[in-house]
Amino acid sequence: MSKVQIVEVGPRDGFQSVGPFIPTETKIDLLQSIFSAGIRRVEATSFVSKSAVPQLADAEAILLAANQLQGLDAQVLIPTERQAVRAIDAGAMHLSFVLSVSDSHNYSNVRRSTSESIEEYAAIMRMMPVGARMRLNIATAFDCPYDGRVDEEVTTSVLKRILLAPLPNEIALCDTTGRVTPDHVSTLFEKCQRLFPEIDDWAFHAHDTYGLGTANTLAAWNAGVKIFDASVAGLGGCPFAPGATGNVATEDLVWMFEGMGVSTGIDFQSLLTVAHRVAALDGAQTGGRVRDAMSATCLL
Amino acid sequence: MSKVQIVEVGPRDGFQSVGPFIPTETKIDLLQSIFSAGIRRVEATSFVSKSAVPQLADAEAILLAANQLQGLDAQVLIPTERQAVRAIDAGAMHLSFVLSVSDSHNYSNVRRSTSESIEEYAAIMRMMPVGARMRLNIATAFDCPYDGRVDEEVTTSVLKRILLAPLPNEIALCDTTGRVTPDHVSTLFEKCQRLFPEIDDWAFHAHDTYGLGTANTLAAWNAGVKIFDASVAGLGGCPFAPGATGNVATEDLVWMFEGMGVSTGIDFQSLLTVAHRVAALDGAQTGGRVRDAMSATCLL
Repeated sequence: MSKVQIVEVGPRDGFQSVGPFIPTETKIDLLQSIFSAGIRRVEATSFVSKSAVPQLADAEAILLAANQLQGLDAQVLIPTERQAVRAIDAGAMHLSFVLSVSDSHNYSNVRRSTSESIEEYAAIMRMMPVGARMRLNIATAFDCPYDGRVDEEVTTSVLKRILLAPLPNEIALCDTTGRVTPDHVSTLFEKCQRLFPEIDDWAFHAHDTYGLGTANTLAAWNAGVKIFDASVAGLGGCPFAPGATGNVATEDLVWMFEGMGVSTGIDFQSLLTVAHRVAALDGAQTGGRVRDAMSATCLL
Repeated sequence: MSKVQIVEVGPRDGFQSVGPFIPTETKIDLLQSIFSAGIRRVEATSFVSKSAVPQLADAEAILLAANQLQGLDAQVLIPTERQAVRAIDAGAMHLSFVLSVSDSHNYSNVRRSTSESIEEYAAIMRMMPVGARMRLNIATAFDCPYDGRVDEEVTTSVLKRILLAPLPNEIALCDTTGRVTPDHVSTLFEKCQRLFPEIDDWAFHAHDTYGLGTANTLAAWNAGVKIFDASVAGLGGCPFAPGATGNVATEDLVWMFEGMGVSTGIDFQSLLTVAHRVAALDGAQTGGRVRDAMSATCLL
Protein backbone atom coordinates (compact mmCIF):
# COMPACT_ATOMS: atom_id res chain seq x y z
CA MET A 1 0.00 0.00 0.00
CA SER A 2 1.40 3.43 -0.87
CA LYS A 3 1.70 5.94 1.92
CA VAL A 4 2.36 9.57 2.73
CA GLN A 5 3.78 11.31 5.74
CA ILE A 6 1.73 14.16 7.13
CA VAL A 7 3.57 16.78 9.17
CA GLU A 8 1.16 18.33 11.66
CA VAL A 9 2.08 22.03 11.81
CA GLY A 10 -0.87 23.19 13.90
CA PRO A 11 1.13 23.48 17.15
CA ARG A 12 3.43 25.98 15.43
CA ASP A 13 1.80 27.51 12.35
CA GLY A 14 -1.67 27.27 13.85
CA PHE A 15 -1.03 28.29 17.46
CA GLN A 16 1.13 31.29 16.50
CA SER A 17 -1.93 32.86 14.85
CA VAL A 18 -4.10 32.57 17.95
CA GLY A 19 -4.26 35.80 19.96
CA PRO A 20 -5.12 34.71 23.51
CA PHE A 21 -2.28 32.74 25.10
CA ILE A 22 -3.00 29.00 25.02
CA PRO A 23 -1.85 27.61 28.40
CA THR A 24 1.26 25.48 28.06
CA GLU A 25 -0.50 22.48 29.60
CA THR A 26 -3.28 22.77 26.99
CA LYS A 27 -0.70 22.81 24.21
CA ILE A 28 1.00 19.74 25.66
CA ASP A 29 -2.32 17.96 26.06
CA LEU A 30 -3.19 18.68 22.41
CA LEU A 31 0.25 17.43 21.33
CA GLN A 32 -0.44 14.19 23.17
CA SER A 33 -3.87 13.89 21.51
CA ILE A 34 -2.32 14.51 18.10
CA PHE A 35 0.21 11.78 18.83
CA SER A 36 -2.53 9.44 20.05
CA ALA A 37 -4.38 9.94 16.75
CA GLY A 38 -1.40 8.37 14.99
CA ILE A 39 0.49 11.46 13.88
CA ARG A 40 4.20 10.72 14.09
CA ARG A 41 5.69 14.00 12.92
CA VAL A 42 4.83 17.44 14.18
CA GLU A 43 6.16 20.98 14.03
CA ALA A 44 5.90 21.33 17.78
CA THR A 45 6.75 25.00 18.20
CA SER A 46 9.04 27.73 16.98
CA PHE A 47 12.03 29.31 18.63
CA VAL A 48 11.38 32.95 17.83
CA SER A 49 11.55 36.28 19.57
CA LYS A 50 9.22 36.07 22.58
CA SER A 51 8.17 39.67 22.09
CA ALA A 52 7.37 39.09 18.39
CA VAL A 53 5.38 35.88 19.01
CA PRO A 54 4.37 35.72 22.69
CA GLN A 55 2.14 32.71 21.96
CA LEU A 56 5.28 30.57 21.45
CA ALA A 57 7.26 31.93 24.40
CA ASP A 58 6.98 28.47 26.01
CA ALA A 59 9.00 26.80 23.22
CA GLU A 60 11.45 25.10 25.62
CA ALA A 61 8.67 23.50 27.68
CA ILE A 62 6.78 22.37 24.60
CA LEU A 63 9.84 20.82 22.98
CA LEU A 64 10.68 19.01 26.21
CA ALA A 65 7.17 17.54 26.34
CA ALA A 66 7.16 16.64 22.65
CA ASN A 67 10.50 14.88 22.92
CA GLN A 68 9.07 12.72 25.69
CA LEU A 69 6.48 11.21 23.32
CA GLN A 70 8.31 8.07 22.19
CA GLY A 71 8.20 7.74 18.42
CA LEU A 72 7.20 11.33 17.72
CA ASP A 73 9.48 13.24 15.37
CA ALA A 74 9.21 16.78 16.76
CA GLN A 75 10.66 19.45 14.53
CA VAL A 76 10.90 23.09 15.58
CA LEU A 77 10.94 26.12 13.33
CA ILE A 78 13.90 28.47 13.60
CA PRO A 79 14.23 31.68 11.59
CA THR A 80 17.82 32.66 12.56
CA GLU A 81 21.15 31.31 13.73
CA ARG A 82 20.58 32.81 17.16
CA GLN A 83 17.30 30.97 17.57
CA ALA A 84 18.91 27.78 16.27
CA VAL A 85 21.40 27.96 19.14
CA ARG A 86 18.51 28.38 21.56
CA ALA A 87 16.63 25.41 20.04
CA ILE A 88 19.66 23.12 20.09
CA ASP A 89 20.36 24.10 23.70
CA ALA A 90 16.78 23.12 24.48
CA GLY A 91 17.32 19.66 22.97
CA ALA A 92 16.00 20.09 19.41
CA MET A 93 17.12 17.25 17.16
CA HIS A 94 15.01 18.25 14.17
CA LEU A 95 15.30 21.85 13.02
CA SER A 96 13.13 23.49 10.42
CA PHE A 97 14.79 26.56 8.93
CA VAL A 98 12.77 28.97 6.84
CA LEU A 99 13.89 31.45 4.23
CA SER A 100 11.98 33.19 1.46
CA VAL A 101 12.93 33.18 -2.20
CA SER A 102 11.89 36.82 -2.43
CA ASP A 103 13.93 39.43 -0.59
CA SER A 104 10.82 41.48 0.15
CA HIS A 105 9.13 38.63 2.04
CA ASN A 106 12.36 37.59 3.74
CA TYR A 107 12.87 41.14 5.02
CA SER A 108 9.29 41.26 6.25
CA ASN A 109 9.68 37.89 7.95
CA VAL A 110 13.17 38.10 9.50
CA ARG A 111 14.56 41.55 8.64
CA ARG A 112 17.30 40.06 6.50
CA SER A 113 17.92 39.61 2.80
CA THR A 114 17.56 36.15 1.31
CA SER A 115 21.37 36.07 0.88
CA GLU A 116 21.87 36.80 4.56
CA SER A 117 19.47 34.00 5.47
CA ILE A 118 21.36 31.63 3.18
CA GLU A 119 24.53 32.47 5.11
CA GLU A 120 22.74 31.80 8.39
CA TYR A 121 21.54 28.46 7.06
CA ALA A 122 25.14 27.49 6.25
CA ALA A 123 26.28 28.59 9.71
CA ILE A 124 23.53 26.52 11.37
CA MET A 125 24.45 23.45 9.32
CA ARG A 126 28.02 23.74 10.59
CA MET A 127 26.85 23.59 14.22
CA MET A 128 24.19 20.87 13.93
CA PRO A 129 24.46 18.21 16.67
CA VAL A 130 25.39 14.74 15.51
CA GLY A 131 22.25 12.93 14.35
CA ALA A 132 20.12 16.07 14.14
CA ARG A 133 17.95 16.53 11.06
CA MET A 134 17.31 19.66 9.01
CA ARG A 135 14.13 20.46 7.10
CA LEU A 136 14.57 23.50 4.87
CA ASN A 137 11.38 25.49 4.21
CA ILE A 138 11.39 27.58 1.07
CA ALA A 139 8.78 30.31 1.54
CA THR A 140 7.38 32.21 -1.46
CA ALA A 141 8.62 29.32 -3.64
CA PHE A 142 5.67 29.89 -5.99
CA ASP A 143 4.21 33.26 -5.17
CA CYS A 144 5.01 36.26 -2.99
CA PRO A 145 2.47 38.52 -1.27
CA TYR A 146 4.54 41.55 -2.33
CA ASP A 147 5.97 40.56 -5.73
CA GLY A 148 3.34 38.18 -7.12
CA ARG A 149 4.23 35.04 -9.05
CA VAL A 150 7.79 33.81 -8.51
CA ASP A 151 9.38 32.36 -11.63
CA GLU A 152 10.59 28.78 -11.36
CA GLU A 153 14.09 29.88 -12.38
CA VAL A 154 14.22 32.33 -9.46
CA THR A 155 13.33 29.60 -6.98
CA THR A 156 15.73 27.05 -8.45
CA SER A 157 18.58 29.59 -8.52
CA VAL A 158 18.06 30.32 -4.81
CA LEU A 159 18.07 26.56 -4.18
CA LYS A 160 21.33 26.21 -6.10
CA ARG A 161 22.97 28.81 -3.89
CA ILE A 162 21.66 27.19 -0.69
CA LEU A 163 22.84 23.74 -1.69
CA LEU A 164 26.48 24.87 -1.81
CA ALA A 165 26.20 24.54 1.98
CA PRO A 166 25.76 21.15 3.66
CA LEU A 167 22.59 19.47 2.42
CA PRO A 168 19.36 19.45 4.40
CA ASN A 169 17.55 16.14 4.91
CA GLU A 170 14.47 17.52 3.22
CA ILE A 171 13.24 20.59 1.37
CA ALA A 172 9.68 21.89 1.63
CA LEU A 173 8.33 24.18 -1.05
CA CYS A 174 5.76 26.47 0.56
CA ASP A 175 2.72 28.08 -1.02
CA THR A 176 2.96 31.08 1.28
CA THR A 177 0.02 33.01 -0.17
CA GLY A 178 -2.24 30.11 -1.21
CA ARG A 179 -2.32 31.54 -4.72
CA VAL A 180 -0.44 28.79 -6.55
CA THR A 181 -2.39 26.59 -8.97
CA PRO A 182 -1.87 22.85 -9.54
CA ASP A 183 0.05 23.17 -12.81
CA HIS A 184 2.72 25.32 -11.14
CA VAL A 185 2.95 22.93 -8.19
CA SER A 186 3.58 19.99 -10.53
CA THR A 187 6.12 21.68 -12.77
CA LEU A 188 8.21 23.18 -9.96
CA PHE A 189 8.41 19.91 -8.01
CA GLU A 190 9.26 17.98 -11.18
CA LYS A 191 11.97 20.50 -12.06
CA CYS A 192 13.45 20.55 -8.55
CA GLN A 193 13.60 16.76 -8.31
CA ARG A 194 15.36 16.67 -11.70
CA LEU A 195 17.80 19.50 -10.89
CA PHE A 196 18.63 18.41 -7.33
CA PRO A 197 18.82 14.62 -7.24
CA GLU A 198 21.03 14.91 -4.15
CA ILE A 199 17.94 15.84 -2.09
CA ASP A 200 16.24 12.70 -0.78
CA ASP A 201 12.91 14.13 0.29
CA TRP A 202 10.66 16.90 -0.93
CA ALA A 203 7.69 18.22 1.00
CA PHE A 204 4.80 20.51 0.15
CA HIS A 205 3.29 23.12 2.45
CA ALA A 206 -0.17 23.95 1.07
CA HIS A 207 -2.53 26.74 1.97
CA ASP A 208 -6.26 26.55 1.31
CA THR A 209 -6.93 30.29 1.16
CA TYR A 210 -8.16 30.12 -2.44
CA GLY A 211 -9.78 26.69 -2.18
CA LEU A 212 -6.90 24.79 -3.75
CA GLY A 213 -5.32 23.19 -0.67
CA THR A 214 -6.37 19.68 -1.63
CA ALA A 215 -6.04 20.20 -5.41
CA ASN A 216 -2.47 21.48 -5.04
CA THR A 217 -1.63 18.66 -2.66
CA LEU A 218 -2.95 16.21 -5.25
CA ALA A 219 -0.76 17.85 -7.91
CA ALA A 220 2.31 17.53 -5.66
CA TRP A 221 1.45 13.88 -4.94
CA ASN A 222 1.11 13.23 -8.68
CA ALA A 223 4.57 14.79 -9.09
CA GLY A 224 6.05 12.30 -6.63
CA VAL A 225 5.94 14.24 -3.34
CA LYS A 226 5.25 12.07 -0.29
CA ILE A 227 5.47 14.53 2.63
CA PHE A 228 2.75 17.10 3.29
CA ASP A 229 2.30 19.80 5.90
CA ALA A 230 -1.18 20.35 7.28
CA SER A 231 -2.80 21.94 10.31
CA VAL A 232 -5.50 20.21 12.32
CA ALA A 233 -8.86 22.03 11.93
CA GLY A 234 -7.13 24.20 9.33
CA LEU A 235 -5.95 26.30 12.26
CA GLY A 236 -3.92 29.30 11.20
CA GLY A 237 -5.85 31.64 8.99
CA CYS A 238 -4.12 33.60 6.28
CA PRO A 239 -1.70 36.26 7.56
CA PHE A 240 -2.07 38.20 4.31
CA ALA A 241 -5.86 38.18 4.13
CA PRO A 242 -7.36 38.33 7.61
CA GLY A 243 -10.75 36.63 7.66
CA ALA A 244 -9.70 34.08 5.06
CA THR A 245 -8.57 30.55 5.80
CA GLY A 246 -4.94 29.49 5.66
CA ASN A 247 -3.34 26.09 6.20
CA VAL A 248 -4.94 23.11 4.55
CA ALA A 249 -6.73 21.06 7.22
CA THR A 250 -5.08 17.82 8.30
CA GLU A 251 -8.43 16.03 8.37
CA ASP A 252 -9.13 17.06 4.75
CA LEU A 253 -5.80 15.57 3.60
CA VAL A 254 -6.33 12.40 5.64
CA TRP A 255 -9.83 12.07 4.14
CA MET A 256 -8.45 12.49 0.62
CA PHE A 257 -5.43 10.21 0.91
CA GLU A 258 -7.15 7.43 2.85
CA GLY A 259 -10.03 7.60 0.34
CA MET A 260 -7.45 7.14 -2.41
CA GLY A 261 -6.08 4.07 -0.64
CA VAL A 262 -2.94 5.92 0.42
CA SER A 263 -2.06 5.29 4.05
CA THR A 264 -1.42 8.22 6.40
CA GLY A 265 -1.09 6.12 9.55
CA ILE A 266 -3.61 8.48 11.18
CA ASP A 267 -6.89 7.42 12.81
CA PHE A 268 -9.50 9.63 11.18
CA GLN A 269 -12.05 9.62 14.01
CA SER A 270 -9.45 10.40 16.66
CA LEU A 271 -8.14 13.21 14.48
CA LEU A 272 -11.66 14.66 14.15
CA THR A 273 -11.97 14.72 17.93
CA VAL A 274 -8.72 16.69 18.17
CA ALA A 275 -9.90 19.00 15.37
CA HIS A 276 -13.06 19.86 17.28
CA ARG A 277 -11.02 20.65 20.40
CA VAL A 278 -8.64 22.85 18.42
CA ALA A 279 -11.53 24.64 16.69
CA ALA A 280 -12.98 25.44 20.12
CA LEU A 281 -9.82 27.27 21.28
CA ASP A 282 -10.47 30.90 22.13
CA GLY A 283 -9.35 32.98 19.13
CA ALA A 284 -9.02 30.02 16.76
CA GLN A 285 -9.36 30.80 13.07
CA THR A 286 -10.10 27.54 11.33
CA GLY A 287 -10.63 26.06 7.89
CA GLY A 288 -11.26 22.78 6.16
CA ARG A 289 -14.48 21.09 5.08
CA VAL A 290 -14.49 17.54 6.36
CA ARG A 291 -14.98 18.52 9.99
CA ASP A 292 -18.24 20.33 9.22
CA ALA A 293 -19.40 17.66 6.77
CA MET A 294 -18.92 14.91 9.33
CA SER A 295 -20.60 16.83 12.14
CA ALA A 296 -23.50 18.24 10.13
CA THR A 297 -26.83 16.71 10.98
CA CYS A 298 -27.22 13.74 8.70
CA LEU A 299 -30.66 13.37 7.14
CA LEU A 300 -30.21 9.68 6.49
CA MET B 1 -4.83 28.12 -25.33
CA SER B 2 -6.72 25.21 -23.82
CA LYS B 3 -10.17 25.86 -22.48
CA VAL B 4 -12.99 24.43 -20.43
CA GLN B 5 -16.72 25.01 -20.42
CA ILE B 6 -18.28 25.81 -17.08
CA VAL B 7 -21.98 25.09 -16.68
CA GLU B 8 -23.43 27.44 -14.10
CA VAL B 9 -25.96 25.38 -12.13
CA GLY B 10 -26.68 27.95 -9.40
CA PRO B 11 -30.04 29.03 -10.87
CA ARG B 12 -31.26 25.43 -10.57
CA ASP B 13 -29.18 23.43 -8.09
CA GLY B 14 -28.49 26.50 -5.96
CA PHE B 15 -31.86 28.22 -5.97
CA GLN B 16 -33.81 25.04 -5.27
CA SER B 17 -32.08 24.81 -1.89
CA VAL B 18 -33.09 28.30 -0.84
CA GLY B 19 -36.17 28.37 1.40
CA PRO B 20 -37.68 31.84 0.95
CA PHE B 21 -39.04 32.33 -2.57
CA ILE B 22 -36.63 34.35 -4.71
CA PRO B 23 -38.76 36.75 -6.77
CA THR B 24 -38.83 35.79 -10.44
CA GLU B 25 -37.46 39.20 -11.44
CA THR B 26 -34.49 38.70 -9.07
CA LYS B 27 -33.78 35.32 -10.64
CA ILE B 28 -33.92 36.83 -14.13
CA ASP B 29 -31.69 39.71 -13.08
CA LEU B 30 -29.13 37.27 -11.68
CA LEU B 31 -29.29 35.21 -14.88
CA GLN B 32 -28.50 38.34 -16.85
CA SER B 33 -25.57 39.17 -14.52
CA ILE B 34 -24.24 35.64 -14.88
CA PHE B 35 -24.47 36.01 -18.66
CA SER B 36 -22.77 39.42 -18.49
CA ALA B 37 -19.86 37.84 -16.57
CA GLY B 38 -19.19 35.71 -19.63
CA ILE B 39 -20.96 32.50 -18.67
CA ARG B 40 -22.45 30.97 -21.81
CA ARG B 41 -24.07 27.86 -20.43
CA VAL B 42 -26.43 27.66 -17.51
CA GLU B 43 -28.84 25.24 -15.91
CA ALA B 44 -31.55 27.87 -15.77
CA THR B 45 -34.23 26.06 -13.82
CA SER B 46 -35.91 22.71 -13.39
CA PHE B 47 -39.32 21.56 -14.48
CA VAL B 48 -40.42 19.69 -11.40
CA SER B 49 -43.53 19.32 -9.31
CA LYS B 50 -44.42 22.80 -8.06
CA SER B 51 -45.54 21.39 -4.74
CA ALA B 52 -42.28 19.46 -4.29
CA VAL B 53 -40.04 22.43 -5.20
CA PRO B 54 -42.07 25.65 -4.90
CA GLN B 55 -38.89 27.71 -5.42
CA LEU B 56 -38.83 26.63 -9.09
CA ALA B 57 -42.56 27.04 -9.75
CA ASP B 58 -41.69 29.89 -12.15
CA ALA B 59 -39.76 27.60 -14.52
CA GLU B 60 -41.67 28.73 -17.64
CA ALA B 61 -40.96 32.43 -17.01
CA ILE B 62 -37.30 31.76 -16.21
CA LEU B 63 -36.76 29.66 -19.33
CA LEU B 64 -38.43 32.32 -21.47
CA ALA B 65 -36.08 34.99 -20.07
CA ALA B 66 -33.00 32.78 -20.39
CA ASN B 67 -33.81 31.96 -24.01
CA GLN B 68 -33.90 35.68 -24.76
CA LEU B 69 -30.22 36.08 -23.83
CA GLN B 70 -28.56 35.69 -27.24
CA GLY B 71 -25.70 33.24 -27.08
CA LEU B 72 -26.70 31.66 -23.78
CA ASP B 73 -27.14 27.90 -23.83
CA ALA B 74 -29.91 27.43 -21.25
CA GLN B 75 -30.48 23.85 -20.19
CA VAL B 76 -33.29 22.81 -17.86
CA LEU B 77 -33.37 19.83 -15.57
CA ILE B 78 -36.21 17.34 -15.99
CA PRO B 79 -36.70 14.29 -13.77
CA THR B 80 -39.57 12.60 -15.68
CA GLU B 81 -41.21 12.24 -19.07
CA ARG B 82 -44.17 14.30 -17.90
CA GLN B 83 -41.93 17.20 -16.94
CA ALA B 84 -40.04 16.86 -20.22
CA VAL B 85 -43.32 17.46 -22.07
CA ARG B 86 -43.88 20.56 -19.94
CA ALA B 87 -40.34 21.84 -20.60
CA ILE B 88 -40.55 21.26 -24.36
CA ASP B 89 -43.94 23.00 -24.45
CA ALA B 90 -42.27 25.95 -22.70
CA GLY B 91 -39.61 26.15 -25.39
CA ALA B 92 -36.74 24.15 -23.89
CA MET B 93 -34.12 23.22 -26.49
CA HIS B 94 -31.60 21.77 -24.05
CA LEU B 95 -32.87 19.18 -21.62
CA SER B 96 -30.93 17.77 -18.72
CA PHE B 97 -32.32 14.42 -17.59
CA VAL B 98 -31.22 12.93 -14.29
CA LEU B 99 -31.26 9.37 -13.09
CA SER B 100 -29.37 7.63 -10.32
CA VAL B 101 -27.24 4.52 -10.67
CA SER B 102 -28.55 3.26 -7.35
CA ASP B 103 -32.20 2.31 -7.09
CA SER B 104 -32.37 3.59 -3.52
CA HIS B 105 -31.36 7.11 -4.51
CA ASN B 106 -33.50 7.06 -7.64
CA TYR B 107 -36.56 6.07 -5.59
CA SER B 108 -35.82 8.83 -3.10
CA ASN B 109 -35.37 11.37 -5.89
CA VAL B 110 -38.18 10.49 -8.32
CA ARG B 111 -40.11 7.56 -6.78
CA ARG B 112 -39.08 5.22 -9.59
CA SER B 113 -36.54 2.46 -10.03
CA THR B 114 -33.46 3.16 -12.12
CA SER B 115 -34.90 0.87 -14.81
CA GLU B 116 -38.11 2.87 -14.94
CA SER B 117 -36.10 6.09 -15.32
CA ILE B 118 -34.08 4.52 -18.13
CA GLU B 119 -37.38 3.78 -19.93
CA GLU B 120 -38.47 7.39 -19.41
CA TYR B 121 -35.18 8.60 -20.82
CA ALA B 122 -35.76 6.52 -23.98
CA ALA B 123 -39.31 7.86 -24.27
CA ILE B 124 -38.08 11.46 -23.95
CA MET B 125 -35.40 10.90 -26.60
CA ARG B 126 -38.13 9.75 -29.01
CA MET B 127 -40.03 13.02 -28.58
CA MET B 128 -37.13 15.48 -28.62
CA PRO B 129 -37.74 18.48 -30.91
CA VAL B 130 -35.47 18.73 -33.95
CA GLY B 131 -32.23 20.43 -32.93
CA ALA B 132 -32.78 19.99 -29.21
CA ARG B 133 -29.87 18.76 -27.09
CA MET B 134 -29.83 16.24 -24.27
CA ARG B 135 -27.46 16.24 -21.30
CA LEU B 136 -27.73 13.06 -19.27
CA ASN B 137 -26.85 13.39 -15.57
CA ILE B 138 -25.79 10.20 -13.84
CA ALA B 139 -26.38 10.71 -10.12
CA THR B 140 -24.64 8.49 -7.55
CA ALA B 141 -22.13 7.58 -10.29
CA PHE B 142 -19.42 7.25 -7.64
CA ASP B 143 -21.13 7.09 -4.28
CA CYS B 144 -24.66 6.85 -2.91
CA PRO B 145 -25.88 8.41 0.34
CA TYR B 146 -27.75 5.17 1.13
CA ASP B 147 -25.51 2.45 -0.31
CA GLY B 148 -22.01 3.95 -0.04
CA ARG B 149 -19.38 3.52 -2.72
CA VAL B 150 -20.76 2.53 -6.13
CA ASP B 151 -18.53 0.13 -8.04
CA GLU B 152 -17.36 1.29 -11.44
CA GLU B 153 -18.86 -1.81 -13.03
CA VAL B 154 -22.29 -0.95 -11.62
CA THR B 155 -22.15 2.54 -13.13
CA THR B 156 -20.86 1.37 -16.50
CA SER B 157 -23.50 -1.37 -16.68
CA VAL B 158 -26.26 1.20 -16.11
CA LEU B 159 -24.67 3.36 -18.84
CA LYS B 160 -24.65 0.39 -21.21
CA ARG B 161 -28.37 -0.11 -20.69
CA ILE B 162 -29.12 3.60 -21.17
CA LEU B 163 -27.10 3.81 -24.37
CA LEU B 164 -29.32 1.26 -26.10
CA ALA B 165 -31.69 4.24 -26.47
CA PRO B 166 -30.83 7.22 -28.70
CA LEU B 167 -27.57 8.81 -27.56
CA PRO B 168 -27.44 11.97 -25.47
CA ASN B 169 -25.15 14.81 -26.58
CA GLU B 170 -23.30 14.63 -23.31
CA ILE B 171 -23.08 12.61 -20.13
CA ALA B 172 -22.31 14.11 -16.74
CA LEU B 173 -21.05 11.89 -13.94
CA CYS B 174 -22.21 13.39 -10.65
CA ASP B 175 -20.55 13.19 -7.25
CA THR B 176 -23.90 13.34 -5.48
CA THR B 177 -22.55 13.03 -1.94
CA GLY B 178 -19.20 14.83 -2.33
CA ARG B 179 -17.48 11.72 -0.97
CA VAL B 180 -15.59 10.65 -4.09
CA THR B 181 -11.79 10.97 -4.08
CA PRO B 182 -9.61 12.00 -7.05
CA ASP B 183 -8.39 8.49 -7.93
CA HIS B 184 -11.97 7.25 -8.39
CA VAL B 185 -12.87 10.32 -10.50
CA SER B 186 -9.93 9.66 -12.83
CA THR B 187 -10.44 5.95 -13.24
CA LEU B 188 -14.20 6.11 -13.86
CA PHE B 189 -13.89 8.86 -16.46
CA GLU B 190 -11.03 7.04 -18.18
CA LYS B 191 -13.03 3.82 -18.21
CA CYS B 192 -16.21 5.48 -19.52
CA GLN B 193 -14.38 7.28 -22.32
CA ARG B 194 -12.79 3.97 -23.33
CA LEU B 195 -16.02 1.95 -23.12
CA PHE B 196 -18.31 4.51 -24.75
CA PRO B 197 -16.41 6.22 -27.58
CA GLU B 198 -19.77 7.07 -29.17
CA ILE B 199 -20.27 9.78 -26.51
CA ASP B 200 -18.69 13.04 -27.64
CA ASP B 201 -18.67 14.95 -24.38
CA TRP B 202 -18.27 14.03 -20.74
CA ALA B 203 -18.94 16.41 -17.89
CA PHE B 204 -18.25 16.33 -14.16
CA HIS B 205 -20.57 17.58 -11.45
CA ALA B 206 -18.45 18.10 -8.33
CA HIS B 207 -19.47 18.75 -4.76
CA ASP B 208 -17.17 20.38 -2.22
CA THR B 209 -18.78 18.94 0.90
CA TYR B 210 -15.59 17.14 1.94
CA GLY B 211 -13.15 19.75 0.61
CA LEU B 212 -12.37 17.93 -2.62
CA GLY B 213 -14.40 19.99 -5.11
CA THR B 214 -11.34 21.46 -6.79
CA ALA B 215 -9.13 18.37 -6.35
CA ASN B 216 -11.75 16.12 -7.96
CA THR B 217 -12.29 18.64 -10.76
CA LEU B 218 -8.54 18.62 -11.36
CA ALA B 219 -8.58 14.82 -11.51
CA ALA B 220 -11.41 14.90 -14.08
CA TRP B 221 -9.54 17.52 -16.12
CA ASN B 222 -6.41 15.36 -16.03
CA ALA B 223 -8.58 12.49 -17.32
CA GLY B 224 -9.64 14.57 -20.31
CA VAL B 225 -12.94 16.07 -19.13
CA LYS B 226 -13.60 19.61 -20.43
CA ILE B 227 -17.08 20.43 -19.08
CA PHE B 228 -17.65 21.21 -15.40
CA ASP B 229 -20.73 22.07 -13.39
CA ALA B 230 -20.37 24.69 -10.67
CA SER B 231 -22.60 26.99 -8.65
CA VAL B 232 -21.81 30.67 -8.16
CA ALA B 233 -20.95 31.36 -4.48
CA GLY B 234 -21.11 27.61 -3.94
CA LEU B 235 -24.86 28.09 -3.50
CA GLY B 236 -26.70 24.90 -2.72
CA GLY B 237 -25.48 23.29 0.46
CA CYS B 238 -25.45 19.55 0.87
CA PRO B 239 -28.91 17.94 0.94
CA PHE B 240 -27.53 14.95 2.84
CA ALA B 241 -25.63 16.90 5.49
CA PRO B 242 -27.45 20.11 6.40
CA GLY B 243 -24.98 22.75 7.53
CA ALA B 244 -22.27 21.50 5.21
CA THR B 245 -21.40 23.01 1.85
CA GLY B 246 -22.44 21.42 -1.43
CA ASN B 247 -21.71 22.47 -5.00
CA VAL B 248 -18.19 23.53 -5.86
CA ALA B 249 -18.12 27.32 -6.27
CA THR B 250 -17.90 28.67 -9.81
CA GLU B 251 -15.41 31.34 -8.74
CA ASP B 252 -13.12 28.67 -7.22
CA LEU B 253 -13.06 26.73 -10.52
CA VAL B 254 -12.52 29.91 -12.55
CA TRP B 255 -9.65 30.89 -10.22
CA MET B 256 -8.06 27.45 -10.62
CA PHE B 257 -8.45 27.05 -14.35
CA GLU B 258 -7.51 30.62 -15.29
CA GLY B 259 -4.50 30.32 -12.95
CA MET B 260 -3.52 27.18 -14.88
CA GLY B 261 -3.73 29.09 -18.14
CA VAL B 262 -6.96 27.31 -19.11
CA SER B 263 -9.56 29.71 -20.46
CA THR B 264 -13.09 29.69 -19.04
CA GLY B 265 -14.31 32.71 -20.98
CA ILE B 266 -15.55 34.15 -17.70
CA ASP B 267 -14.58 37.55 -16.28
CA PHE B 268 -13.42 36.80 -12.75
CA GLN B 269 -14.21 40.19 -11.20
CA SER B 270 -17.71 40.31 -12.69
CA LEU B 271 -18.31 36.79 -11.44
CA LEU B 272 -17.21 37.80 -7.93
CA THR B 273 -19.76 40.61 -7.97
CA VAL B 274 -22.50 38.14 -8.86
CA ALA B 275 -21.23 35.74 -6.18
CA HIS B 276 -21.57 38.42 -3.50
CA ARG B 277 -25.14 39.17 -4.62
CA VAL B 278 -26.04 35.49 -4.58
CA ALA B 279 -24.45 35.00 -1.15
CA ALA B 280 -26.61 37.86 0.17
CA LEU B 281 -29.88 36.14 -0.84
CA ASP B 282 -32.14 35.46 2.11
CA GLY B 283 -31.70 31.80 3.05
CA ALA B 284 -28.59 31.27 0.90
CA GLN B 285 -26.27 28.48 2.00
CA THR B 286 -22.93 29.12 0.36
CA GLY B 287 -19.47 27.63 -0.05
CA GLY B 288 -16.20 28.24 -1.80
CA ARG B 289 -13.02 29.95 -0.65
CA VAL B 290 -11.99 32.47 -3.26
CA ARG B 291 -14.83 34.88 -2.51
CA ASP B 292 -13.75 35.28 1.11
CA ALA B 293 -10.05 35.39 0.24
CA MET B 294 -10.59 38.19 -2.26
CA SER B 295 -12.81 40.22 0.04
CA ALA B 296 -10.83 39.72 3.24
CA THR B 297 -9.01 42.80 4.43
CA CYS B 298 -5.61 42.72 2.80
CA LEU B 299 -2.70 43.62 5.07
CA LEU B 300 -0.50 44.60 2.17
